[in-house]
Amino acid sequence: MSFRHGLRLLYSQLSLFSRELNRPWCRCVSNSLALSSEKRASDFNSFVARTNTCGELRSAHVGQEVTLCGWIQYQRQGLFLVLRDFEGLTQIIIPQDERMPTGDIEVKVKTAEVLNSCKKLPFEIKDFIKKSEALRMQYRYLDLRSFQMQHNLRLRSQMVMKMREYLCNLHGFVDVETPTLFKRTPGGAKEFVVPSREPGRFYCLPQSPQQFKQLLMVGGLDRYFQVARCYRDEGSKPDRQPEFTQIDIEMSFVDQAGIQRLIEGLLQYSWPSERGPITTPFPSMSYAEALAEYGTDKPDTRFGMKIIDVSDVFRSVEIGFVQNAVNKPQGTVKAICIPQGVRHLQNKDFESLKESAKSQFNQEVLHLILKPYESLKSPLSKFLSVEQHSELIQALKVQADDVVLLAAGEHEKVCLVLGNMRLETANLLESRGLVLRDPTAFHFLWVVDFPLFLHKEENPAELESAHHPFTAPHPSDTSLLYSEPAKVRSQHYDLVLNGSEIGGGSIRIHNAEQQRFVLETVLKEDPELLSHLLEALKCGAPPHGGIALGLDRLICLVAGAPSIRDVIAFPKSFKGRDLMSNAPDYITPEELEPYHIQVAWPAAEAEANKN
Amino acid sequence: MSFRHGLRLLYSQLSLFSRELNRPWCRCVSNSLALSSEKRASDFNSFVARTNTCGELRSAHVGQEVTLCGWIQYQRQGLFLVLRDFEGLTQIIIPQDERMPTGDIEVKVKTAEVLNSCKKLPFEIKDFIKKSEALRMQYRYLDLRSFQMQHNLRLRSQMVMKMREYLCNLHGFVDVETPTLFKRTPGGAKEFVVPSREPGRFYCLPQSPQQFKQLLMVGGLDRYFQVARCYRDEGSKPDRQPEFTQIDIEMSFVDQAGIQRLIEGLLQYSWPSERGPITTPFPSMSYAEALAEYGTDKPDTRFGMKIIDVSDVFRSVEIGFVQNAVNKPQGTVKAICIPQGVRHLQNKDFESLKESAKSQFNQEVLHLILKPYESLKSPLSKFLSVEQHSELIQALKVQADDVVLLAAGEHEKVCLVLGNMRLETANLLESRGLVLRDPTAFHFLWVVDFPLFLHKEENPAELESAHHPFTAPHPSDTSLLYSEPAKVRSQHYDLVLNGSEIGGGSIRIHNAEQQRFVLETVLKEDPELLSHLLEALKCGAPPHGGIALGLDRLICLVAGAPSIRDVIAFPKSFKGRDLMSNAPDYITPEELEPYHIQVAWPAAEAEANKN
Repeated sequence: MSFRHGLRLLYSQLSLFSRELNRPWCRCVSNSLALSSEKRASDFNSFVARTNTCGELRSAHVGQEVTLCGWIQYQRQGLFLVLRDFEGLTQIIIPQDERMPTGDIEVKVKTAEVLNSCKKLPFEIKDFIKKSEALRMQYRYLDLRSFQMQHNLRLRSQMVMKMREYLCNLHGFVDVETPTLFKRTPGGAKEFVVPSREPGRFYCLPQSPQQFKQLLMVGGLDRYFQVARCYRDEGSKPDRQPEFTQIDIEMSFVDQAGIQRLIEGLLQYSWPSERGPITTPFPSMSYAEALAEYGTDKPDTRFGMKIIDVSDVFRSVEIGFVQNAVNKPQGTVKAICIPQGVRHLQNKDFESLKESAKSQFNQEVLHLILKPYESLKSPLSKFLSVEQHSELIQALKVQADDVVLLAAGEHEKVCLVLGNMRLETANLLESRGLVLRDPTAFHFLWVVDFPLFLHKEENPAELESAHHPFTAPHPSDTSLLYSEPAKVRSQHYDLVLNGSEIGGGSIRIHNAEQQRFVLETVLKEDPELLSHLLEALKCGAPPHGGIALGLDRLICLVAGAPSIRDVIAFPKSFKGRDLMSNAPDYITPEELEPYHIQVAWPAAEAEANKN
Repeated sequence: MSFRHGLRLLYSQLSLFSRELNRPWCRCVSNSLALSSEKRASDFNSFVARTNTCGELRSAHVGQEVTLCGWIQYQRQGLFLVLRDFEGLTQIIIPQDERMPTGDIEVKVKTAEVLNSCKKLPFEIKDFIKKSEALRMQYRYLDLRSFQMQHNLRLRSQMVMKMREYLCNLHGFVDVETPTLFKRTPGGAKEFVVPSREPGRFYCLPQSPQQFKQLLMVGGLDRYFQVARCYRDEGSKPDRQPEFTQIDIEMSFVDQAGIQRLIEGLLQYSWPSERGPITTPFPSMSYAEALAEYGTDKPDTRFGMKIIDVSDVFRSVEIGFVQNAVNKPQGTVKAICIPQGVRHLQNKDFESLKESAKSQFNQEVLHLILKPYESLKSPLSKFLSVEQHSELIQALKVQADDVVLLAAGEHEKVCLVLGNMRLETANLLESRGLVLRDPTAFHFLWVVDFPLFLHKEENPAELESAHHPFTAPHPSDTSLLYSEPAKVRSQHYDLVLNGSEIGGGSIRIHNAEQQRFVLETVLKEDPELLSHLLEALKCGAPPHGGIALGLDRLICLVAGAPSIRDVIAFPKSFKGRDLMSNAPDYITPEELEPYHIQVAWPAAEAEANKN
């Protein structure tokens, strides 16, 4: 059910109902209502005095005596009011005489009780009223009454419940809770620390239950899942939360295809019916293909404009910078074709796109207006022969009024630049009213065969894990691990939805010697910090693998919400603050004493504190 | 299924199976197996290469080709082995010639693959092998392979899943995740602190989602639940964990009876069938009755030995200390009767009981051997008339060979002492082989009508909340709140199982003025610290109430486990340490820098660190 549809439901419920209301309601002006019809299998009226919700009454109820509980949404001169709860609205008539109105449904009041009063609210809760993010966060308990938040939180609850049914009831997974007070992991720079009562010793809040879930497999749990709270301290980053939730899964004796089929089944089973069916298996693409065609490891496959390699066309063209690029190792010329670009984009748009490529990637991009059967309208026209012109048009499948963006240089860099241009152009075109990406479409994609290691940016001679050090090498590349580790592909897989990464996982290393080699020899890390894991792998660890889905992001995409903050009941601001309670807050030195820590005030602040 | 029964299942599976095994297994000696037959609705073999679990094969499978994955439990000369997984054992024959054995079931190996090797384990994992708690914790991943841990964790997962079905699918509750990085609550001395990147500002890990769940009710969520991770820093306490889990519930428009019926239904629905049915509604008892009859707020009602008030018998008896006690305000004489005490307890037992009363409560206790139709055998005999003797026997329903423990003094203190004696005596009697408390019995009990406030121990003129400051006063006592708050009963309720508190909750204050009065006038707390909650109550808060069940304790009782550490996958030691990973651990000053804190070393340690 989309918001729009939900609102229509709401207004259609404003027709009159004929019933008797005989007990408590709660007075307050606001605007909360929900939910999908699927939920009607649940009894919302058990254990309380009400007999029906405000969204439930229909002609079939005529003649019954009902008890409703809710908030006064609207009232007029004590004659008439609209009562609201989480499920909808009901019109209430406070009878003035014995004459029955001629409308077909209404609730006639027998007794009514005001359960609480309500001050003037800081903002009116109407769906069409725009309020600032800061105000919404400060009065989150009022914002939660909005149709959107009610819908999003209930959708989240239902979807997670279906996932649990699938994992626990259908496939024998065990829901195991793992600790959040743990030890710092090697390189865990983004882990919050929690001082203990032992001087100098700290717990850390883990970024994921990775080590624990592997230890559970060593412990013979066979199939583990958890809706796990995870923590990551990234300072200020938009649309990131210091605490977030992942659907965390691990299985023994499984391979990559097994995990992929599991997740496809999981999403299919839990997918809300109002979002239409999803088809499985999901398409799959290697990391190399994703980079070459979409210039990213998370391709949005809802629209075309793929990157095309046109090096062959340009190999003999006498343009200095092109020749320069093509003759280097990994040198290429690539392009994307913007359909109908001439009609929707202006020169200043192209200038801005090219400026963005220059500032973000230090890369020149050319824009060409290629007209089939006509000559090029670009700085390149004089260098291309008629044949080359026609080859280019054919390679890029150029139609009339299309515009081509072209870049020359090292393969990976050119891909990244054009991948970026592709998304920027799509945003531009959509801002002009074109629809490139169907908002009701859900395009899932597996991205596989990632490199196991990457060259460190600050020191390319050293390697770091592309994902994490527990990822197993690709079976075809295992022997390379000991000779040319940089060339090894991994058994890591990412799940992408509409261009967002919503999950990632891998088959893990289950051999202690291989794990030690990766840590010590390839990554140059101290294996002592993971001695408990290495020890565990020696104790008959089964082959195992798993995945984690980012629940906040997934629900955000399913709900069509603008931000993950709209699918979290009490989110933090982008600075990591709770604007309602003002957390984090100052505490006294005495309160820190049991933890043997003191605040190291920055000099300026220490100065200010003296005064 | 009890452990004992499970083990029988295990050994009965050692009979031979006749099948073909054609792929991976994993080599390792240990001993993990589970689980209840209920689970067979789940598919444990989806997404992996195996076709059956080791506990699954029966005569009906004869002739089929199967693939098993597991650990080698036992092997003999490469001819024969026992393969184990989480569900059971299967005997495997590695054929030496073509002759079929005459046994009725076995698996004949076609192909086999050793997936990992295994070093000599630090301890053999057999159920009858006692290993130290420290060793179990250090090698928790091996301990998890034990039948008990597999059973407990799977039972926990299943029971929680059923609770979710009941709440979410049957009764329309919404599963909402609330933050764990929050603000310090007033008086939250047991809250872990988490430094933020803003100098001097700290998050706290909350002891429960109390404030958030009330705010969700203000936000119109109507019915909330969460399997919530909670944190409490109590330093070293046996059988407490720094992080624990509660089934957290809140409802709008509900009263005490509504919550009680909800929880009874919840437990009945999720109760494991092998534990026998539980009957509802649960009996209920006021706090005053619980104190008077059992000397505790969590009575174990599986056995008698209730406290009897015998003040009337003693009112005219000329014994100095008795008269002293009876004539004071709240002065009483009370007793418990130990059935067959003469046969099972010796003089030194009584001396030890009386010593314990003296040292713990500074209270004298007398023991009397009352023989019906004979005279008292006690220091009191000379003071009691024949009538008084007979009255006492009648009041206490004394039978031959019973022993009476008697104490005189202030009502509450005498109750607490005798309540304590009652439990100590029961433990003593059971250590002598008597069964007072049926280990298969589950006695639930509601304890209600608690006082709303208690006099502070250190300053009895001041009041503190008996539970928490959001608890609503009992409807009959509301007017007393403003005149004699110490006399007000609350709408708090505790759920007790076999003498353990497994849950507690209350109807909350939903009126902002009343909440402010309680905080400011009664408790003398700064209401500013809870300004967001007070503000929220003004915005049309509905009447609401809820409860939290301690999941670890509940599962521990259901599983019959000796400690909550046996129902938690990775528990901390009683000093709050993870003995496997050695958390909490030292971290460098550089790692603390982003959080603007430094360690305040205690002097001695600082000295040691200098060297």
